[in-house]
Amino acid sequence: MGIKLYGHPFSVPVQRVIACLEEKHLEYEFVVIDIISTDQHKQEPFISINPFGQIPALEDGDLKLFESRAITQYLANTYADKGTPLILKDPKKMAIVSVWIEVEFHTFEETASKLSYELVFKPMFGKTIDEAIVEHNQEKLGKILEVYEARLAGSKYLGGEEFSLADLHHLPIINYLYGTKTKALFDGKPNVSAWCADILARPAWAKVVERMKHITEK
Amino acid sequence: MGIKLYGHPFSVPVQRVIACLEEKHLEYEFVVIDIISTDQHKQEPFISINPFGQIPALEDGDLKLFESRAITQYLANTYADKGTPLILKDPKKMAIVSVWIEVEFHTFEETASKLSYELVFKPMFGKTIDEAIVEHNQEKLGKILEVYEARLAGSKYLGGEEFSLADLHHLPIINYLYGTKTKALFDGKPNVSAWCADILARPAWAKVVERMKHITEK
Repeated sequence: MGIKLYGHPFSVPVQRVIACLEEKHLEYEFVVIDIISTDQHKQEPFISINPFGQIPALEDGDLKLFESRAITQYLANTYADKGTPLILKDPKKMAIVSVWIEVEFHTFEETASKLSYELVFKPMFGKTIDEAIVEHNQEKLGKILEVYEARLAGSKYLGGEEFSLADLHHLPIINYLYGTKTKALFDGKPNVSAWCADILARPAWAKVVERMKHITEK
Repeated sequence: MGIKLYGHPFSVPVQRVIACLEEKHLEYEFVVIDIISTDQHKQEPFISINPFGQIPALEDGDLKLFESRAITQYLANTYADKGTPLILKDPKKMAIVSVWIEVEFHTFEETASKLSYELVFKPMFGKTIDEAIVEHNQEKLGKILEVYEARLAGSKYLGGEEFSLADLHHLPIINYLYGTKTKALFDGKPNVSAWCADILARPAWAKVVERMKHITEK
């Protein structure tokens, strides 16, 4: 049966799962779900896997999962001995990783996704950027990144000294924002910039970028 | 040293952590952080525990944590043998619990928290309810609860046949919304109503309500 990932190459949460699959050196089949012209994610058979009609979804044998961060945690736990660990065995150290997994979802993504929507996806689809939304969220993201800057002064990665899911979950949005004027917010913070350069240079992330380009060009 | 929980009794994420502590039969000290009149959560010493200045935060010995769902997962993992299990040992079954933990955060809370803000907290502080926001989010929540209704037709709890963190995380907002007109959305769905009645009747949740009342009256 093997692993099947359903999604679209543009999608941030889909790229998050691919980054995890590549870090774990897992074989998988990528099934493109057309979210742009035919709304395949809102129809059967896709909604029998995710009734909320959102990508990604993943099948591993008879197990059907959705929600990108639930999928990455499943892969990290189930394939603990393959590729990069991504989680920590010590419960106290893992608790710190979990805190930063939640920070990404609760704090970083909420703001960063509004910026990637305005500055990446709207231009992609010929829509007009709302500069007021950009300005407001750049200010918010700047404050969030100040906390990251302080955290990364005392810790190589967000969850501790090892690269983990807490860092990996940030990759797709940072990669998108690095192609926009928002990159200046990161550039002004040396610890944050060094962390971004480190995680964006991971061979698994390079494979995600390559694979997405290949699928998009097909 | 023991466990210290920092927060305010009105707060949904704080109540989420208390529900978990009570389910696990753990002793803890509750330290009230005044988020209403003096903004203690935005100042030292609190921001040395959570630099984002949000409640709750928890100390367990020398470990300092924040983000309610990271705290509940830490407690469930670390005190696995105390009280209610809340997590499952089988990785595939736990993956399904994780999916519904993410659904609560990603889908349910986003909408439900807007309703509790309008219908519970605004009246509490003498602010005017925005009926357009209420209507929009009631419509959204109705659609979300349709998916819950279908899920709960085939499964006693969201994550499977056992009560887990996936259910527990919903309790504080459901409890608040049950005191508002939004309860009608739940009443119209038999499986959802039965699930709400079941989880609201848990002895640990009754202790949360009692404890919060006691702290508020002090």
